[in-house]
Amino acid sequence: MSFLEQLKTVAAEAEVTLDRITNKNYGSERLQEAIRYSALNGGKRLRAYMVAEFCELCGVDRKTVADYGAAVEMIHAFSLIHDDLPAMDNDDMRRGKPSNHRAFGEATAILAGDALALDAFAAAGKNKYCSNAQNAEAMILLSEKAGSLGMCNGQQIDIDGEGKSIELSELIMLVDNKTGALFECACALGCIGANANETQKKVAKRFGLLAGRAFQITDDLLDIHSTAEELGKTVGKDVSAGKSTFPALMGEEGAREEAKNCIAEAKECLTFFADCDAKNRLYEFCDYMLSRKH
Amino acid sequence: MSFLEQLKTVAAEAEVTLDRITNKNYGSERLQEAIRYSALNGGKRLRAYMVAEFCELCGVDRKTVADYGAAVEMIHAFSLIHDDLPAMDNDDMRRGKPSNHRAFGEATAILAGDALALDAFAAAGKNKYCSNAQNAEAMILLSEKAGSLGMCNGQQIDIDGEGKSIELSELIMLVDNKTGALFECACALGCIGANANETQKKVAKRFGLLAGRAFQITDDLLDIHSTAEELGKTVGKDVSAGKSTFPALMGEEGAREEAKNCIAEAKECLTFFADCDAKNRLYEFCDYMLSRKH
Repeated sequence: MSFLEQLKTVAAEAEVTLDRITNKNYGSERLQEAIRYSALNGGKRLRAYMVAEFCELCGVDRKTVADYGAAVEMIHAFSLIHDDLPAMDNDDMRRGKPSNHRAFGEATAILAGDALALDAFAAAGKNKYCSNAQNAEAMILLSEKAGSLGMCNGQQIDIDGEGKSIELSELIMLVDNKTGALFECACALGCIGANANETQKKVAKRFGLLAGRAFQITDDLLDIHSTAEELGKTVGKDVSAGKSTFPALMGEEGAREEAKNCIAEAKECLTFFADCDAKNRLYEFCDYMLSRKH
Repeated sequence: MSFLEQLKTVAAEAEVTLDRITNKNYGSERLQEAIRYSALNGGKRLRAYMVAEFCELCGVDRKTVADYGAAVEMIHAFSLIHDDLPAMDNDDMRRGKPSNHRAFGEATAILAGDALALDAFAAAGKNKYCSNAQNAEAMILLSEKAGSLGMCNGQQIDIDGEGKSIELSELIMLVDNKTGALFECACALGCIGANANETQKKVAKRFGLLAGRAFQITDDLLDIHSTAEELGKTVGKDVSAGKSTFPALMGEEGAREEAKNCIAEAKECLTFFADCDAKNRLYEFCDYMLSRKH
């Protein structure tokens, strides 16, 4: 199976897992509706893919980490809801649909985001294929990579830098936190589910961080060259907001070069794992980080 | 030591634990500042007290659950930040100080809340006095009681009911979720840290739920009879917003009676535990739920 076929397969499996996890008997139907609107929106499920693939890379069936994959996707969905809020990026569109607060109002969107973030932990913690120790490690990692030392920190650095020009080193710190931290988390969660050793977990995190950096550079380039139709979200916002992006700071060619270097190093990380189908697909995933069109 | 002395002692200890947990090397100083502004604001620390007291009620030193207590207080602090947002209750004051978004702006307030919610899990999960199994159970409980089946659900029911008059049964469901769930969580976390049996955990949850209901009724009454100076927050908002509160639905006397009944049943829950100082203090805590002035 090629990387793209595997991505599609894992995405479909993630949709089933997320449907199960978010299909609860809520007091408020509106909250459930808002949660499911954003959790089951047919995203690419790159993070769930990374969780599954690193588990298989360590020789363990990916069903072992389906709940971990869903948990990371829930954290991702929460971050998109809050990112789109009027007080943040003020985005009306997300994946070709009205953003959560446009569909449900701001108060419910804030709560749906909060609930997804909080629910992610029980989703990971109740993974019946893993031990208490593995599940505890998974929840702690989710907390650290999503919270004030990870994704939230990246979003705050982004806010702090608004309207200012920032240095390349600051931009890298921003991206490593805002995007890289959750990629790191996803790759390491696959290893945790597979009971991999500490070196493998460390290398998996490095792979995730580098893939995240390449992902963001490609995002910056798509914001310049793509259309709203292709991306399913507003384009050209970075330039009009005067944002410091990789292309803005390094030129488009320099940014492309930087992304290639990240991916070259990410591929080296894979040499720490035995040859297998998952490894071949992860090489393709690396190339996809550079070539993707949406 | 009396209940009030113990509450003061545990509150001071919680402040130290929260200071340690939130004193990290952030990329964004502003995020750290906003987190600490709300996490270290000298609250009553009722939830940390309940965690500590139920641990001692089960015969175990409360230092065992200091991290769990801090985690619940972090979840509480996050909920207050998001509750105060313009899209939610739009409150400018909190404990006599500007609310988080008035001090730091809306975007940072949203993120500081998010970060506190997410960081709470690593805070509980890294409790070195407890096993992986205990820490996993603690994190799952935090997730379930704070998330879409607990506190967030209560807040959504609150929003859904705005401008409408609701039935008493709906109000009870609202309060049991919005306030009771985290009280339940706190009492049960103390039991988890003490390796109590399942019956004790269940009874502890019931105690928390009832104490939460009494707490909210007293809150409703204080909103009518107290001053902003005494409470450190805006008063009279329920009446001016036409909110369905216990006094509005049952009359003031009826509400007082209901609170007393809750506390009588909460006290019965304590008979499942052996006599000790903690038990005596919890009886006082029960009375305080009815008599508190702020």
